[in-house]
Amino acid sequence: MAKKIAPAALAAPKRFELLTLGDELLLGRTANAHLAFLGAQLARRGVQLAANVVLPDDAETIAAQLARSWARSAVVITTGGLGPTSDDCTREAVAEVLGRKLVFDREVEKAISARFATLGRKMTHNNLKQAWRPEGAEALPNPFGTAPGLWIEQDGKVLVMLPGPPNELEPMWANEVLPRLVRRKLVGRSESYVQLRTAGVGESALETRLQPLIAKYPGVDVAFCAHAWAVDVRFGWHRGKAGEAQARKLAGEAQALLGDEVFAVGDDSLAEAVADLLRQDDKTLAVAESGSGGLLASVFTDLPGASKFFQGGVVCYRNSGKVIMLDIPEALLSQHGAISAETAVAMATGVCENFVADYGLSLTCCAGPGACCGDKAAGTVFVGLHSPDGGWCKRLEYPGTAAAVRARAINAALDWLRRELLRAHRAKPVAAPVKPVKAAKGRKRK
Amino acid sequence: MAKKIAPAALAAPKRFELLTLGDELLLGRTANAHLAFLGAQLARRGVQLAANVVLPDDAETIAAQLARSWARSAVVITTGGLGPTSDDCTREAVAEVLGRKLVFDREVEKAISARFATLGRKMTHNNLKQAWRPEGAEALPNPFGTAPGLWIEQDGKVLVMLPGPPNELEPMWANEVLPRLVRRKLVGRSESYVQLRTAGVGESALETRLQPLIAKYPGVDVAFCAHAWAVDVRFGWHRGKAGEAQARKLAGEAQALLGDEVFAVGDDSLAEAVADLLRQDDKTLAVAESGSGGLLASVFTDLPGASKFFQGGVVCYRNSGKVIMLDIPEALLSQHGAISAETAVAMATGVCENFVADYGLSLTCCAGPGACCGDKAAGTVFVGLHSPDGGWCKRLEYPGTAAAVRARAINAALDWLRRELLRAHRAKPVAAPVKPVKAAKGRKRK
Repeated sequence: MAKKIAPAALAAPKRFELLTLGDELLLGRTANAHLAFLGAQLARRGVQLAANVVLPDDAETIAAQLARSWARSAVVITTGGLGPTSDDCTREAVAEVLGRKLVFDREVEKAISARFATLGRKMTHNNLKQAWRPEGAEALPNPFGTAPGLWIEQDGKVLVMLPGPPNELEPMWANEVLPRLVRRKLVGRSESYVQLRTAGVGESALETRLQPLIAKYPGVDVAFCAHAWAVDVRFGWHRGKAGEAQARKLAGEAQALLGDEVFAVGDDSLAEAVADLLRQDDKTLAVAESGSGGLLASVFTDLPGASKFFQGGVVCYRNSGKVIMLDIPEALLSQHGAISAETAVAMATGVCENFVADYGLSLTCCAGPGACCGDKAAGTVFVGLHSPDGGWCKRLEYPGTAAAVRARAINAALDWLRRELLRAHRAKPVAAPVKPVKAAKGRKRK
Repeated sequence: MAKKIAPAALAAPKRFELLTLGDELLLGRTANAHLAFLGAQLARRGVQLAANVVLPDDAETIAAQLARSWARSAVVITTGGLGPTSDDCTREAVAEVLGRKLVFDREVEKAISARFATLGRKMTHNNLKQAWRPEGAEALPNPFGTAPGLWIEQDGKVLVMLPGPPNELEPMWANEVLPRLVRRKLVGRSESYVQLRTAGVGESALETRLQPLIAKYPGVDVAFCAHAWAVDVRFGWHRGKAGEAQARKLAGEAQALLGDEVFAVGDDSLAEAVADLLRQDDKTLAVAESGSGGLLASVFTDLPGASKFFQGGVVCYRNSGKVIMLDIPEALLSQHGAISAETAVAMATGVCENFVADYGLSLTCCAGPGACCGDKAAGTVFVGLHSPDGGWCKRLEYPGTAAAVRARAINAALDWLRRELLRAHRAKPVAAPVKPVKAAKGRKRK
């Protein structure tokens, strides 16, 4: 049996389970985005999911697992299996386990018809399957799709059924489900841990450095999580014996000990840390990349207000693109190769000057087999940085798959820029008498 | 209990379960990439995972679930929980359930020390935790990390323990685990379904169109899976009563009925379909994007040999970037706005001409709240296409989150280019007497 969860913020700690339904998940055709989303949403409110079970679209299997999960949990959330096609069968399984019959909901039928009318699309007969619900279930409106969610309370427990598409599930969670869970005191209102995010230190080395501090606070629940080039440390009070004050004290001491290795307290990404530093000093950034093909630019995509500091980027797979778009001399490319320190610096400088930015960051790497790398080994990465103080390059070597190399290279590049921005910020005079007029930079034209 | 799986290709159908361990998964901090990877790997070999259970790093919980999964399955695969930090405890749980003691493996210790020496990093004491294994377990070498995998056979069943980091797990699966499973006839050697991937038709409409055909072959296992702007249909013979011949016949008839809606037979992505068409006619592509910030360019990143047809891309968040890098007149931007048909066409034309490509594809969209969209509503997307025959634009409206809007916009853009490439290919004379010399295009310079 699972360990009991005891979040200090909640009156009555409860066991939550998530059942994620869909052959496409077990066949590896769709990533289980619901676990990532719902797990994070619940964690912020002091609840750690006790388990997530992924099951096929098979009524018998779903019913068996639901019966088991329902018996041992206070809240069971299901996702998927509510669609119109014939392989979706969750409603039937739920009705069977809860001993309720399925009824046809005229209101839901109307909402489905209205949605098709709005979109100007023809409703096919199988769409009406989505208007059936277990008797007594509350339909949760779905403004972004045809399948409504369902909320069922029985025996002091809650069953929440959510539609599969993330763009339908996520707003329904925020607008319908979370407020109901808060009202019933099943989730808290505040965060239940402090998280330090670090970059540039390995997981083992980090634990070793923190061990003396952790030993001072034995009741705090400490967990490490390594990503590419970054390790998070969470100091929690929902499972450990110590309370919030102890966890916060330990987190504060750990932060002081680690210094600049910590790039965020909370959930901010490396890109957000970089963005904050750029905004703070009113600086702008442009990026150039080859083998990472748009991934470096895309880390800024989801940041609100990115257009304030992010000028843009250039993806140049071929040398011709580097010459045309980044003004890199052909002689430099033929002498040093596309994957070289010289090219990385020229890319950073070129994109910085052409986009009229303050900082230019570049990545040129041989991510892995199949890439065209000349004499460089797979996993070789050059990061170029052009700043108001000059241009530099770093050479890095990473093992692993092409995707792993790219992810690490991007984080290493962001972390380098972050540390450079911190250094520049600290080097600034505290009270600059007159802000110097920024020298006008133009695009180099040959 | 789960329905029995009976893949025709396998001598003895067996039940596989995947246990994915890690608080970080349940807390939504890391996506469950292992389910996607291992599910797809097994599906190709005729095995559908019966279940995936995600559990916290808690020895008691892991042991309880492992005992249940072990009792009902022929193969249990665990991922994660083998790392050096103190919250990893899978070895202990496995030893308990299988009734074996943990032994210290000198060979593994040597391999860990050697790896640290190669990387020039200092080994900390907790790394040696990874050298413990249940007695009788075979250590699977890990060239990309310190934690070896483990292979255990007992009572005619198999337990496979894999490390958490995907760049360690994936090569270990391919090089160590899959060959052992094939030798023991636990997985097949051939695919066990035919998949048609379609774009531009909704899931319900697709099922309605295919229904008369599906009714002709009642024994074939047909499953639909909707992604953003794309729906896959799988015709399988590992669960249905009909054999491979029937499934393939139905798939062939469905493909003929759907025509150009089908962009791939198999697993190819829309980007791969576009890449194949470009390579087939020896054409090149460049892309320009604003709100999708590098995501359109990045769909080509993972394709081997992308440099053959992908010239590159420009990400321009701000109008200044569009003017400088894409030669869009400032007057056009101020008159029509950044999110407009006119700008989309100018972006496609500008990037096509500047990168000296045959086709230019552009996306300018107001993905969602927080973006800077002028008078356009969130979800408004303009796709621009510049081809040798001229430039066009499409306006699209999508509901949902910013990420959903971007994903659909990218697929819609790729699908439009695909259909245009198909049209151009068919319009070509079957036997061109002399291949015309391509007109030299230069970069417009103001």
